[in-house]
Amino acid sequence: MPTDAHIVKSFTAELDRLTTMIAEMGGHVEAAIADATTALRRRDSDLANRVIEADRTIDQLEAQVSAHVVRMLALRQPMATDLRTIVAALKIAGDLERAGDYAKNIAKRTLILNQSPVTGPVSGIANLSQMVSAMLREVLDAYLAGDSKVAEASRARDEVVDAAHTGLFRELLTYMMEDPSTITACTHMVFIAKNLERIGDHATNIAENLVFQVRGEHLEDRHAVSGPGSES
Amino acid sequence: MPTDAHIVKSFTAELDRLTTMIAEMGGHVEAAIADATTALRRRDSDLANRVIEADRTIDQLEAQVSAHVVRMLALRQPMATDLRTIVAALKIAGDLERAGDYAKNIAKRTLILNQSPVTGPVSGIANLSQMVSAMLREVLDAYLAGDSKVAEASRARDEVVDAAHTGLFRELLTYMMEDPSTITACTHMVFIAKNLERIGDHATNIAENLVFQVRGEHLEDRHAVSGPGSES
Repeated sequence: MPTDAHIVKSFTAELDRLTTMIAEMGGHVEAAIADATTALRRRDSDLANRVIEADRTIDQLEAQVSAHVVRMLALRQPMATDLRTIVAALKIAGDLERAGDYAKNIAKRTLILNQSPVTGPVSGIANLSQMVSAMLREVLDAYLAGDSKVAEASRARDEVVDAAHTGLFRELLTYMMEDPSTITACTHMVFIAKNLERIGDHATNIAENLVFQVRGEHLEDRHAVSGPGSES
Repeated sequence: MPTDAHIVKSFTAELDRLTTMIAEMGGHVEAAIADATTALRRRDSDLANRVIEADRTIDQLEAQVSAHVVRMLALRQPMATDLRTIVAALKIAGDLERAGDYAKNIAKRTLILNQSPVTGPVSGIANLSQMVSAMLREVLDAYLAGDSKVAEASRARDEVVDAAHTGLFRELLTYMMEDPSTITACTHMVFIAKNLERIGDHATNIAENLVFQVRGEHLEDRHAVSGPGSES
């Protein structure tokens, strides 16, 4: 085999390895969101603890992606699409790591909620969780398929998530007002809802990075930390 | 001038340009935090609106850093320390952009708080804001000086910020319990406090990226989305 072909083949293998690591991270994050939500619904502290523990794996994968990216940039000196793919992977890994942190945060708050008998409306949380998980899965599938068209669809989906979050936020406020003994529990649930909504934002970020990778374009409006406009 | 020296000089100029952009972003973020806090304290909606508007500049600077980084990676194919400096700058710009978003979020919530006469304990927020701003400035000064020793100090500082945030969170809960008519306002203030605490986390991330840049080491514990441990 000529050396050039060998180098190209080996470079492709490294790019594939990057995609595999991102897919693996995505799988762990999806599981973390689902498990954290189940732990909340079933008041299952053991499961919540496992979610917290499992976040290490996600963090380690992100560190591996980061190291792999730096190595590829140094040794391969990639150009154009390859370079964008590598830079996008670095950013997407960062988004997944944050999403994993939010799932861990939900698990931590579940542990606190389980310490007292008072509980709030968990079915709204479970619905929001499902919407966000579906959105994240769609974006990750698109990433694996290299399909940038999903980005616009994902943005529309994020608006639905934001609206659901607003409804849940208002519902939680009414619980607190009707029965002040629920204030501490409901405040934790307000944060859990916010964590889910933020995971949706990170899914949108991933979609935007995919557009950058495939088309070399930055989508105009950068997705900001969702303002209170979505919950007031 | 020999060509090699010219290339090196021009590369150094590009690295300097990167540092200048980060410093400029940092200055805007510091101003946004200070202005958002002043807007809250003085119930100044005009100032809050200016903070929201000014966030575009921070977003644009981040996009410029990103583009500059991709260009440098493509054209310069940097190695070792230079590569780490460039990758660290990309991540630090991301952290500053998030910190700017949090300041914008505080401004948005201030606008909502100003719509009703009810208000909560703003002095605690102002204190927390000052602590976080001082922490961010210290980290950015260290970044400009290339001083990685600040990282450990910054982590210790972040623990003080977390403790102050916990105190404020508890204080806000008692306000809500004592007077349920303050629940909506205090919930926004709970988020404002959380936003400030998150800015502290991003300052810590910047410190960690500085350590990576200077020493090529990742600090062991990745800073996670602060768990409820810090506020329960």
